[in-house]
Amino acid sequence: MKLSLNQATIKYADLATALRVTREAGIESIGLWREPVAEVGLAGAAAMVADSGLRVSSLCRGGFFTAADPDRRRAALEDNRRAIEETATLAAAGAPGSAPVLVLVAGGLPDGDRDLPGARARAADAIAELVDDAAAAGVVLAVEPMHPIYAADRGVISTLGQALDVAERFPTVGVVVDTFHVWWDPQLAEQVRRAGPRIAAYQVCDWITPLPADALLARGMMGDGHIDFATVTRLVAEAGYAGDIEVEIFNQSIWDADPLDVALRTVKSFDRCVGA
Amino acid sequence: MKLSLNQATIKYADLATALRVTREAGIESIGLWREPVAEVGLAGAAAMVADSGLRVSSLCRGGFFTAADPDRRRAALEDNRRAIEETATLAAAGAPGSAPVLVLVAGGLPDGDRDLPGARARAADAIAELVDDAAAAGVVLAVEPMHPIYAADRGVISTLGQALDVAERFPTVGVVVDTFHVWWDPQLAEQVRRAGPRIAAYQVCDWITPLPADALLARGMMGDGHIDFATVTRLVAEAGYAGDIEVEIFNQSIWDADPLDVALRTVKSFDRCVGA
Repeated sequence: MKLSLNQATIKYADLATALRVTREAGIESIGLWREPVAEVGLAGAAAMVADSGLRVSSLCRGGFFTAADPDRRRAALEDNRRAIEETATLAAAGAPGSAPVLVLVAGGLPDGDRDLPGARARAADAIAELVDDAAAAGVVLAVEPMHPIYAADRGVISTLGQALDVAERFPTVGVVVDTFHVWWDPQLAEQVRRAGPRIAAYQVCDWITPLPADALLARGMMGDGHIDFATVTRLVAEAGYAGDIEVEIFNQSIWDADPLDVALRTVKSFDRCVGA
Repeated sequence: MKLSLNQATIKYADLATALRVTREAGIESIGLWREPVAEVGLAGAAAMVADSGLRVSSLCRGGFFTAADPDRRRAALEDNRRAIEETATLAAAGAPGSAPVLVLVAGGLPDGDRDLPGARARAADAIAELVDDAAAAGVVLAVEPMHPIYAADRGVISTLGQALDVAERFPTVGVVVDTFHVWWDPQLAEQVRRAGPRIAAYQVCDWITPLPADALLARGMMGDGHIDFATVTRLVAEAGYAGDIEVEIFNQSIWDADPLDVALRTVKSFDRCVGA
């Protein structure tokens, strides 16, 4: 397993800069986000990716499936179909070993809605509606369980076990193991074993304390927090995953730093902590 | 099930004030904390509780069991033995229907320690060492699973299922169901059913967004957030719990308000939302 730099770690870099600093830091793979891809257009982005010689480890992100309103729901599905096409195009443009993986975040509770099981059911139903499109495009839908801190407002799928309950309903749906989201789970070892070949992406960043004021940016560089990465990496490897390991860090001070410095620091922390 | 005002909701009130505003708000039960009890001494506190005519629904809190250092570990056990005695004394002083329940919080990872399974094992071992003392005092140890947001720095027991895995090793150990900590859990219904008579306390407060800057104070009055209390209350009732329902809210703006106003507001929110 090798390091991939997820673009979210250098959020303020445009796609050209992100590809450049990734290469300059000696990293062979990148995890892309839809927004910086859209800034240059899909065809342009694909050409830039091809020129970079980098692998593409995933596209972030689809999902946000929990709207109860039919128009919003339809719009979400259409947007996810576009994301599926983008994933296929970008993975095809990447170097050999690229992974046509679309990371899916379930979405939170609609405003004023307290029916968590209902929102969870809508997320699962939406994935069911996208499975054929993904299969036709050769894209793996990867359901990302999110830390329970986000259950209300971002991701109602809260554990790896719950993500697998959804994924296992379909032959071609995978899951994301992100240390930030799952490190606390008493069932982690058992659920990673259960996931086996369904692990479509492995992402790392640390859980830091005290938690920063903005909980969405509460992630740290590996080694700065409490997560035992070597153990999670071993579990993921034993489950059969052999793809890239994305470093995905949402953290204001890292975003404010020079992106090449961040990429270089990421390489060091990865080598020291992640145990790949 | 009836409302009990947990002292943490009016944190800045001393014990005399807390007992007074609880009565004045028409609430029949109070959940006590060790610190305000210690301020007046145990005997004095017991006399004040007896005079108040209120029930005591629990004492918060024991625990903090995860130190690896032998001296710290021994000190934690001794402190918990004192808490067991305090629980017995205060429950005996309360009105009929008082519950000799000591709420236990596991504690977080020691500084620099990333071995979460190890810390969890030490918490379970500490409970094993206290079981006989609790039984001799007629006190129920109630293991409180804490929201995974606190897994690193406050409570390594993260789910109701995990708390039950510990509690079920002993005939006299119970669990706390606190909506804030467990509302997101996909296994909530199944684990509340499993808990059955082991539910020793039921606490409520809301999960609010955006999460306040201090994650320790991220709790809201019922109705201000995302939790479907009626459903959790029904599950807890179906599991056989018939004790008091404590409202326990850590929230700076609630702490800054007049304690009688808070108690009155608590009654209204409880009646409107909790479904008891």
